[in-house]
Amino acid sequence: MSAKIPLSELDLICKQAQEAKIELRRSSKAKKNDALKYASEFLLKNKAKLIDANTIDMELASQKDLQDSFVDRLELNEKRIDSMISGLDKVINLDDPVGQTNQSHTSPSGFEVSKMRVPLGVIGIIYESRPNVTADASALCLKSGNACILRGGSEAANSNAVIEECMQDGLDKASLPKYSIQLIKNQDRKLVGEMIKREGDIDLLIPRGGKSLIRVISDEAKIPVLKHYEGLCHVFIDKDADLKKAIEISVNAKTYRYGICGTMETLLVSEEVAAKVLPEIKSELDKLGVEIRGCEKTKEVIDVKSASEEDWITEYLAPILSVKVVTDLKSAISHINIYGSGHTDSIVSENLSSVETFFNEVDSSSVMHNLPTCFADGFEYGLGAEVGISTDKLHARGPVGLEGLTSQKFVIKGQGQLRS
Amino acid sequence: MSAKIPLSELDLICKQAQEAKIELRRSSKAKKNDALKYASEFLLKNKAKLIDANTIDMELASQKDLQDSFVDRLELNEKRIDSMISGLDKVINLDDPVGQTNQSHTSPSGFEVSKMRVPLGVIGIIYESRPNVTADASALCLKSGNACILRGGSEAANSNAVIEECMQDGLDKASLPKYSIQLIKNQDRKLVGEMIKREGDIDLLIPRGGKSLIRVISDEAKIPVLKHYEGLCHVFIDKDADLKKAIEISVNAKTYRYGICGTMETLLVSEEVAAKVLPEIKSELDKLGVEIRGCEKTKEVIDVKSASEEDWITEYLAPILSVKVVTDLKSAISHINIYGSGHTDSIVSENLSSVETFFNEVDSSSVMHNLPTCFADGFEYGLGAEVGISTDKLHARGPVGLEGLTSQKFVIKGQGQLRS
Repeated sequence: MSAKIPLSELDLICKQAQEAKIELRRSSKAKKNDALKYASEFLLKNKAKLIDANTIDMELASQKDLQDSFVDRLELNEKRIDSMISGLDKVINLDDPVGQTNQSHTSPSGFEVSKMRVPLGVIGIIYESRPNVTADASALCLKSGNACILRGGSEAANSNAVIEECMQDGLDKASLPKYSIQLIKNQDRKLVGEMIKREGDIDLLIPRGGKSLIRVISDEAKIPVLKHYEGLCHVFIDKDADLKKAIEISVNAKTYRYGICGTMETLLVSEEVAAKVLPEIKSELDKLGVEIRGCEKTKEVIDVKSASEEDWITEYLAPILSVKVVTDLKSAISHINIYGSGHTDSIVSENLSSVETFFNEVDSSSVMHNLPTCFADGFEYGLGAEVGISTDKLHARGPVGLEGLTSQKFVIKGQGQLRS
Repeated sequence: MSAKIPLSELDLICKQAQEAKIELRRSSKAKKNDALKYASEFLLKNKAKLIDANTIDMELASQKDLQDSFVDRLELNEKRIDSMISGLDKVINLDDPVGQTNQSHTSPSGFEVSKMRVPLGVIGIIYESRPNVTADASALCLKSGNACILRGGSEAANSNAVIEECMQDGLDKASLPKYSIQLIKNQDRKLVGEMIKREGDIDLLIPRGGKSLIRVISDEAKIPVLKHYEGLCHVFIDKDADLKKAIEISVNAKTYRYGICGTMETLLVSEEVAAKVLPEIKSELDKLGVEIRGCEKTKEVIDVKSASEEDWITEYLAPILSVKVVTDLKSAISHINIYGSGHTDSIVSENLSSVETFFNEVDSSSVMHNLPTCFADGFEYGLGAEVGISTDKLHARGPVGLEGLTSQKFVIKGQGQLRS
């Protein structure tokens, strides 16, 4: 913290977060759950107020030239608020990782060594104009004993302010510091630039949004950033695949939703089964309006556009699929490791030895067997809500839930041993 | 990798490391251990050659104006080479974390979710002129399935080259790629600047050395850096301490070795026992030539120099100790969290409730009970060799051994479930 007087807006927020984190670190599991429960009650009570605030946000947004998907994410209605509230209830029911200690071992000098999970401290989250993230992300930070500083997209400012108020009222009612959850209200973009340099004040920064935003923040940040780059996910249909499963999984992986990071962008097919599965996959995808771009060998089997080198590195986030026929498992793995984004990749096969090789050698945050990649999601994994899906290898990889918001410290219990 | 032709020296090294990592990722535990065993045999066989190379390094070093401690770390002799060899044997005997899978759980859709430990890929290590690090660090990288790129201090160039050769011969004999371990031989400092920007080529960078070097590298790196800043460690003598233990632990924590990061730099003493322990601690430290700088209350009990605010934030790495008398446990914890470096801090007390509070609230990588902080070390913790002691909170915290050189990926086993 710089000691400048008067304190800037961000100075004050950071100072308040630092104070809150000390209380949070020592607060009981029950107290944190109480705060979440009260917050969900305040959200329920203030539903009308929240919808009014959101209506203002939506009206202001309608005056801008925004994409439909953007406006859709901004909108709140009764059902979505109920889902936000039930999200908080789900967080209450998650195991609290704080204080968990692993099995201890005895050191050569006879003292006891173990590791204990502890909160990171203060988490900064920079996100798009999605009001539900304000509730989801702050609930996960609170449950894991961290204070958080939220910077949401400006279009959601009014909705976010109401949600922050409900969360803070919940904290207050549970006798926890209300500044455990703080929203930066000043919409000046300069504050993001300041926030990402707050070494010592913010322990971890989680940017959510487009690849270019994450890239800029990672490059300029002076504090650790949990990166969630793109999901260029593959499904590989092995020669030993159950062909019915292969077709269903491929179609589901592409068409469940086009805009999520777990969507399959490239389908790899063993040349031994290409002629058996590609026609049916094409016929299903044709019905759903998905364009296929194939390699030369694919085009020998189905009548599709040509894929270029560029296609193998493109996350379409759209009804487009690139298809490549590969010689074998080894060439599939090699393609994935070269062109993939290390997010989620799946093998369809009944040969467990091939599955094991795929699991060991594909260098991605999630490797799957006989499943569509669109399952890549914290809730689907049974981890509860997530703050993002990390494509980093360090600290947290894949869907990041409560554990990714904590750290482990060594706890060493001695009986007066001395080092000689 | 840039596609420039001709390849630069670093391009070539990175390309070779990338190829080696693929082999290493799939290699068995036995093969990696064989390589280490053969490497230790080659070191034994080439002892004379290594001592000759080191003699050249020492002669060149003697022409420079270097500190005794620097020259001491550079020197190799029979005993030190034996210790290097037995270090490799110890690494062989460590558990290999690669492939370890945690208990799986079933997802809401009925598929099986677990996490598996995998190598990070390529580790870069930048270190001082200490030849033993060349063997230690590369052995840990190899055992954890990672390729490594080493950049040691130029004064150890001849010694390091012989050690690299022995390690590579060991790899070769075990039919593993010799480029799994590579030493950058070009001593141009520019290469460090290039190395720290090799995103995609190097997964983790471990700088070892002075605080300023680590600071510069962290600030400029474009790849993840495992930081090992200073160790400003505290011992707190609680009012409920066993006074005999308290005196022994304090003296040991300060005087075991002055130059290591686990050395106590500030002693905190509860005002209730200050008069009982400080005179004897002073008398012991006087004998060993340690200068004490105390707060006002300390000076009421023992005749020492005054400590200034600066002393509470100084890692002396020398026979100097700052002493502060504190009101209670709470004020001790607060002092440690404000002035400490988050490395290692210890409480001496027989009151387990106070110990628990200390453990929960002191925000350091290691918290200790009834032990001197100088035990902060991977070998002493029974973790085997360490590549450093991380003062970061993310990824790895405290002594970093094999586990810190790995990552966990999600392994998801389905039976053809689809997402709806």
